[in-house]
Amino acid sequence: MFNTITVIGCGLIGSSLLRAIDNNKLANQIKIFDKSKSVRAYLSKNFSIKVCDNISDSVKNADLVIISTPLSSYKEVLDSIKSNLKKDMILTDTGSVKKPINEKVLNLKLKDVNWISSHPIAGTEHSGPEHGFAELFKDRWSIISCDKNIPKDKIEKLKNFWIKLGSKVKEMTFEDHDYVLSLTSHLPHAIAYSIVRTSVSSEVKFKKDVIQYSAGGLRDFTRIAASDPLMWKDIFIDNSENILKVLDNYSKNLDEIKNAISNKDSKKLLEIFSSTKKVRKEIIEAGQDTEKPDFGRK
Amino acid sequence: MFNTITVIGCGLIGSSLLRAIDNNKLANQIKIFDKSKSVRAYLSKNFSIKVCDNISDSVKNADLVIISTPLSSYKEVLDSIKSNLKKDMILTDTGSVKKPINEKVLNLKLKDVNWISSHPIAGTEHSGPEHGFAELFKDRWSIISCDKNIPKDKIEKLKNFWIKLGSKVKEMTFEDHDYVLSLTSHLPHAIAYSIVRTSVSSEVKFKKDVIQYSAGGLRDFTRIAASDPLMWKDIFIDNSENILKVLDNYSKNLDEIKNAISNKDSKKLLEIFSSTKKVRKEIIEAGQDTEKPDFGRK
Repeated sequence: MFNTITVIGCGLIGSSLLRAIDNNKLANQIKIFDKSKSVRAYLSKNFSIKVCDNISDSVKNADLVIISTPLSSYKEVLDSIKSNLKKDMILTDTGSVKKPINEKVLNLKLKDVNWISSHPIAGTEHSGPEHGFAELFKDRWSIISCDKNIPKDKIEKLKNFWIKLGSKVKEMTFEDHDYVLSLTSHLPHAIAYSIVRTSVSSEVKFKKDVIQYSAGGLRDFTRIAASDPLMWKDIFIDNSENILKVLDNYSKNLDEIKNAISNKDSKKLLEIFSSTKKVRKEIIEAGQDTEKPDFGRK
Repeated sequence: MFNTITVIGCGLIGSSLLRAIDNNKLANQIKIFDKSKSVRAYLSKNFSIKVCDNISDSVKNADLVIISTPLSSYKEVLDSIKSNLKKDMILTDTGSVKKPINEKVLNLKLKDVNWISSHPIAGTEHSGPEHGFAELFKDRWSIISCDKNIPKDKIEKLKNFWIKLGSKVKEMTFEDHDYVLSLTSHLPHAIAYSIVRTSVSSEVKFKKDVIQYSAGGLRDFTRIAASDPLMWKDIFIDNSENILKVLDNYSKNLDEIKNAISNKDSKKLLEIFSSTKKVRKEIIEAGQDTEKPDFGRK
């Protein structure tokens, strides 16, 4: 499908990509670069791929370059590779925020490069190349965003790449992506971090209890609040405008519940709790979660 | 272990109890009552147990009576059974709030009845007797609360009952129970309801997107926000004081994150996100969740 694919950054996502590309034979050659020496050593030991020690060299002759590093490193990565990008190649990424990244790329005024941003909505609470797996993208959505001047055949080529990894693909503007993800992903993370901090900042006397009796709800939030801190710090800074906006709406909804509790307003509480029950049903119908009770965990 | 056990209320918890009691042969006779005719019909059809049409009769001669109805029905249930409770029997329940319930029971001034409250911290997002299963209590905690004048052998008997169902048992005061659970269970539910309402009250244009791209975090919250509305309305009203207190602490933690985002304070965000990551580890070490990524769901 591609002659050479280069993956830059091999954490959970990057390493899952190279496994999936390899399994599905989507490239004659896979090259990777990671700035961590120990990650490079791990990859050399465990995969028969070309591990590059130099980021600029790694992208030479690549038909597809995928940036899978934290958002805050994009500027440095782009500066290091921009002169070596092959004519007519596709440049993509896997970042969780799009608008500021797109501006960074446009500022470089790259010539003969097809910049089509990707965001595979996939991941787990674990990070690092040892936790990657080829099926990570299966049945998940990958959102693609690009400017109108990008040729259709290039967009189709990248779409097909994600489809071959098992993903469903949707095109979205950079702006819409950042707003929708602030609701479905960034807000939940902000909330999860807050609630876990609240629980563990309880009186010392109860610290052990909070951990021990977490099965009543808290443990679900701790999974999300265990995500990679560096990655999430970048997301919150790069998508701050949308996140602050949805956090304001969220605070209003929380106040509505607070007032209903404070007034012991049964009718209002029942109305609120019934309205959210059906959302779960819609998510399961959309194939975005399992209907097994408790996620089927044991 | 008991000659006769009566279970009042056969939703997810009550029906799981009767399955577990039956499987583990913990009673010579199991009797049940549920005020819903269709639930009684379902139970008669699927179990070889005594299904009673009359709540007062159902508790006669029972050595253990377990109330598994919504909290708001306790007064009615207690009034219906109080005259028929056998001398020296154990009266327990499975409710999620303890202090107000204990007051209700004490007000009845029951004689020769051993009131020992139980709270099995177990459940799923599904409700109704068809979703019950015998293993629901396995490896979960059951919290027991009672007054100091209750004989030790009665407490031991009830403890052993839960242990035989596979649970771990902890004694706690009514007040401590309500505070700890407000942190580990009631706060997470209040938050989950708020966030799901925020997400679906987004602009109409994005409604479908929010469902479709929920795998980035939101879907975990929808599971909790799909819990039984009636049960949760009661919990929020009965434990309002503790819940409002922890909601205030939570709002302060949320403001801390909001300010860090607003000031693009990388250092503070990294500090917050790193502090929550280790809580996950503690919960897994305490055997309260699976360490499989994404809860092992597919």
